[in-house]
Amino acid sequence: MSLIVQKYGGSSVADAESIKRVAKRIVETRKAGNEVVVAVSAMGDSTDELLDLAHQVTPIPAPRELDMLLTAGERISMALLAMAIKSMGHDARSFTGSQAGMITDARHGQARIVDVTPGRVRDALDEGAIAIVAGFQGFNRGTGDITTLGRGGSDTTAVALAAALDADVCEIYTDVDGIYTADPRVVPRAHKIDRISSEEMLELAANGAKVLYIRAVEYARRHGVTLHVRSSFNNNEGTIVYNESATEETIAAAVRTSTGTIPVQSSDPSNPTQKSETTVEEPLIAGVATDLSEAKITVVGVPDIPGKAAQIFNIVAKTGANIDMIVQNVSAASTGLTDISFTLPKSDGQTVLTTLTAEQSEVGFASLQYDDQIGKLALVGAGMRTNAGVSAKLFTALYEAGINIEMISTSEIRISVVTRADTVNDALRVVHTAFGLDGDEEAVVHAGTGR
Amino acid sequence: MSLIVQKYGGSSVADAESIKRVAKRIVETRKAGNEVVVAVSAMGDSTDELLDLAHQVTPIPAPRELDMLLTAGERISMALLAMAIKSMGHDARSFTGSQAGMITDARHGQARIVDVTPGRVRDALDEGAIAIVAGFQGFNRGTGDITTLGRGGSDTTAVALAAALDADVCEIYTDVDGIYTADPRVVPRAHKIDRISSEEMLELAANGAKVLYIRAVEYARRHGVTLHVRSSFNNNEGTIVYNESATEETIAAAVRTSTGTIPVQSSDPSNPTQKSETTVEEPLIAGVATDLSEAKITVVGVPDIPGKAAQIFNIVAKTGANIDMIVQNVSAASTGLTDISFTLPKSDGQTVLTTLTAEQSEVGFASLQYDDQIGKLALVGAGMRTNAGVSAKLFTALYEAGINIEMISTSEIRISVVTRADTVNDALRVVHTAFGLDGDEEAVVHAGTGR
Repeated sequence: MSLIVQKYGGSSVADAESIKRVAKRIVETRKAGNEVVVAVSAMGDSTDELLDLAHQVTPIPAPRELDMLLTAGERISMALLAMAIKSMGHDARSFTGSQAGMITDARHGQARIVDVTPGRVRDALDEGAIAIVAGFQGFNRGTGDITTLGRGGSDTTAVALAAALDADVCEIYTDVDGIYTADPRVVPRAHKIDRISSEEMLELAANGAKVLYIRAVEYARRHGVTLHVRSSFNNNEGTIVYNESATEETIAAAVRTSTGTIPVQSSDPSNPTQKSETTVEEPLIAGVATDLSEAKITVVGVPDIPGKAAQIFNIVAKTGANIDMIVQNVSAASTGLTDISFTLPKSDGQTVLTTLTAEQSEVGFASLQYDDQIGKLALVGAGMRTNAGVSAKLFTALYEAGINIEMISTSEIRISVVTRADTVNDALRVVHTAFGLDGDEEAVVHAGTGR
Repeated sequence: MSLIVQKYGGSSVADAESIKRVAKRIVETRKAGNEVVVAVSAMGDSTDELLDLAHQVTPIPAPRELDMLLTAGERISMALLAMAIKSMGHDARSFTGSQAGMITDARHGQARIVDVTPGRVRDALDEGAIAIVAGFQGFNRGTGDITTLGRGGSDTTAVALAAALDADVCEIYTDVDGIYTADPRVVPRAHKIDRISSEEMLELAANGAKVLYIRAVEYARRHGVTLHVRSSFNNNEGTIVYNESATEETIAAAVRTSTGTIPVQSSDPSNPTQKSETTVEEPLIAGVATDLSEAKITVVGVPDIPGKAAQIFNIVAKTGANIDMIVQNVSAASTGLTDISFTLPKSDGQTVLTTLTAEQSEVGFASLQYDDQIGKLALVGAGMRTNAGVSAKLFTALYEAGINIEMISTSEIRISVVTRADTVNDALRVVHTAFGLDGDEEAVVHAGTGR
């Protein structure tokens, strides 16, 4: 018997009808002969509503109590989901993060998983029940307190359960058909990626692809969990995120388990967006991601002497801000001064500006410039490792479209560029075309007509 | 240092503003030098909203999952209350029923407390924090599952914590000033009772007084907990519910602790509704309660042979219905048949009728009559034990008002009568007057102008 972990997000369980629809899908998975563990998020916008309530009570809610509050959200969705399944004649049991053995450190609001001891979940499966686990939440042994895992927490819950229970596959259900070569709302000819390595997925997620959270991908990669990102509105095969170290047989088995009777790697002629060569040869480029959530800070007139960059980024590090790209201009010989630019989430912008300004005389820079009208585009593909000329092709495509590049940063399997925010969607389309990623048909963004 | 347990119901924490108001009251109690433990209900109508959601998913929700669902309600209110207190600069910690050691049996939806192990609550107090405990909820050790205590559960949580922590007093906050001699909405001259024995309170609660739940009073009585029922909208002294076995000093100490600087048994002339003789001599009558929630079933033409009543009530008992008054007419000698009438909650009426009808030929009765237009009035007072003529005075008052009595039932400290539903409020007023309970001023029903 195979074990499947499924994760359903808030939009999949937004109301009683959605919950019944999800329950039916879970029951079908069980009936197909699988053991099923489900990680579920809070209903629709309920987490935001609870946050609103907290802020009506106090501008800065105590972190322990905020976690206690927010975990009520999944408690509601998981109980409703379990009762929906039971009303369909199948045994189901809901478990809080604590009951499911999601042991974390004590950092409220952003706890890290330190151990997973899903004894009660395993017992429920052994007794033939479907286990419904609250996503996003955990439990600290030292304090005995409830914790939450922060952004993308429910994805992480699902992956951690899949790892601890040695599941055959971890299915991440969402409202799109899988991971696309680019955002289909911007690039109508973006096509669904059939398979992507977790390394490439990490780069895409880190550079703005919204479907999977980077943290869950990291966890899956470290523990060798095969992910299947797919739509909760149809039975199509989605995107398989595989570990580079996994064998072809392991991956194929995961796909078989997950898709049930759907033929593996079907060459169904009615699905022309499926690129047949993906099984034959690793594609050069997996996908292109864009991100409009970042801003750029330029530290102007920094004395070009050793240790200055370190000094600046030590100051920035104290704010906890997540720095992304860093560029240092060549120093002007005449002045002995240089400029250092870096990108960071807009939400961290004000704090970093304030902190740097306070240290201006200590560091000795001339001024700060803040720019929140930037867009980032990242081209990701493991094939870059063995293919020269990718950067040149990228820069040429952007040049021919009249799009100016402001910053460049590269890794082994990724090239990122910063442009003006209002050109990034044009950039995405020309790059998608230039690298031959356009499918033959327009992507169906929402297949939300039920099943 | 005294220890006070306070209970706040859903209407006291209905929104963010109410929560802040309650937090302020709790902080004041702490500042007065007391250790404070709070049992809190779910916000306003949120439990009903969760129930609605469950019924949208399935008509008969699985009891385990329903408890999981409903306990999200207090989780929200207690976390918000704790963060409100913390934002006022006082340490506070919220605890679920499980964390607070409310150990119950496994009967979901109506669990009974089997043990209270409030180690974490005690630790929080020892560290100077205010402990906020979720009312209504518990935990079964055998299954590891979350349970709920059923109707009046939050009152019971408060009393059980007060007993386990050996609190000096358990304050039950509500939207009225205390227990009244009669419902002030019906009897404008009803006056607040300053003190009432738990035995009398039990009879009042069992006969329709809504402010306290009978189960919490029973628990308090069994464990010697002194209750103080008072308004959350002012600082007035409310009603002390004392155990008959408690000494006068114990009760006075509880009152002193609870009222802080308010003089005990003040004879403040601005409070003329306070009857000065209540401290001198036990009053004949504590109060009068009415109840319109019951119906009457009459089993017509029962063979008057031994064992028939037992047979009927064994059948009724199987439905789980809570039978209240039972009256059997004298058998008509000519027929050898008798009628048996009993009252029960209207909500149980249909089930009992169906069950009895199914056994009609077995029992051999002629027919069933169902009457849901009855009202019950109960006169309660420990003074009845040593005073003859109470029944006669009651019946006379009703007769003179032209109110017909349909059933009568008595206990050592209570007389109950059943009348037509539409006469029960008139009955309440004339009885209240006949027994000298009318105060000199009209009662203030809602003092809800905040403070």
